Amino acid sequence: MDLVLRIIAAVGSLGSAVAMGTAEQTLPSFIQFIQFNAQYNDIPMFTFFVITNSIVCAYLGLSLPMSIFHIIRSSAAINSRIILVIFDTVMMALLTAGASVAAAIVYLAHNGNASANWFAYCQQFNSFCERTSWSLIGSFGGIIVFMLLIITSAVAISRR
Amino acid sequence: MDLVLRIIAAVGSLGSAVAMGTAEQTLPSFIQFIQFNAQYNDIPMFTFFVITNSIVCAYLGLSLPMSIFHIIRSSAAINSRIILVIFDTVMMALLTAGASVAAAIVYLAHNGNASANWFAYCQQFNSFCERTSWSLIGSFGGIIVFMLLIITSAVAISRR
Repeated sequence: MDLVLRIIAAVGSLGSAVAMGTAEQTLPSFIQFIQFNAQYNDIPMFTFFVITNSIVCAYLGLSLPMSIFHIIRSSAAINSRIILVIFDTVMMALLTAGASVAAAIVYLAHNGNASANWFAYCQQFNSFCERTSWSLIGSFGGIIVFMLLIITSAVAISRR
Repeated sequence: MDLVLRIIAAVGSLGSAVAMGTAEQTLPSFIQFIQFNAQYNDIPMFTFFVITNSIVCAYLGLSLPMSIFHIIRSSAAINSRIILVIFDTVMMALLTAGASVAAAIVYLAHNGNASANWFAYCQQFNSFCERTSWSLIGSFGGIIVFMLLIITSAVAISRR
């Protein structure tokens, strides 16, 4: 169970990082040398999103051997389980922060904000906007998986 | 320990909600009937921040009796501890999402974004901006306290 959840979350966060990292759109322009280009690193929150998803994905990859070790020796290894809970909690907070920050920008990009005079740039950068919106799914799925991971760990610790 | 952490987090989230909820600034205007006014509910992310902090604060208040019960009967009550871990995890995710979303907007308000043509409105709404920035502290402190809560719960469950 633990192992399967970790693989799902790793795939989700990797997919999110790749989808956001490769999102790009160049608008056709009539004037040469002037190009309107949208990329993930134009907006610091999207860069943060890519970085946090990459970190979380790397962590999940590294935690797989530990998860396999827990399956083999299910009765022992309370300490290593607690260490895993600690890291899971920190990584969940990191992933939630990255996903929320990107979601805030995606919301603004779609709707803009009249009070702050922020323009909804989705009207121009249509496909870039769609790509960034979809890339959030993997990340939010990862958050739910992390919740399940922490809860199953707590149950596993209580049942030893 | 658990009780003290919960009280700290409750005070932090309450402070954040109140600080953000009461943040308001009206710019002096030379023309009558036209006023430039900034309030937290102009921006949906700030409203979300106030709501999440209020929910988390209410939950922490409700969880205090349970925490006291755990102090009195420290050896028993594994099930109620696990239920508390489940809710703590969900609330941590909620608080992290609220705080990150508000932080993203505060960042934009301070720096703006040239690529998206978003203007840094802090240049006008100075005191409103400062108030919203400071209100994040309680929330981010609350996230750290939630991490400690989940970790101490896991350790307590393992030690029964």
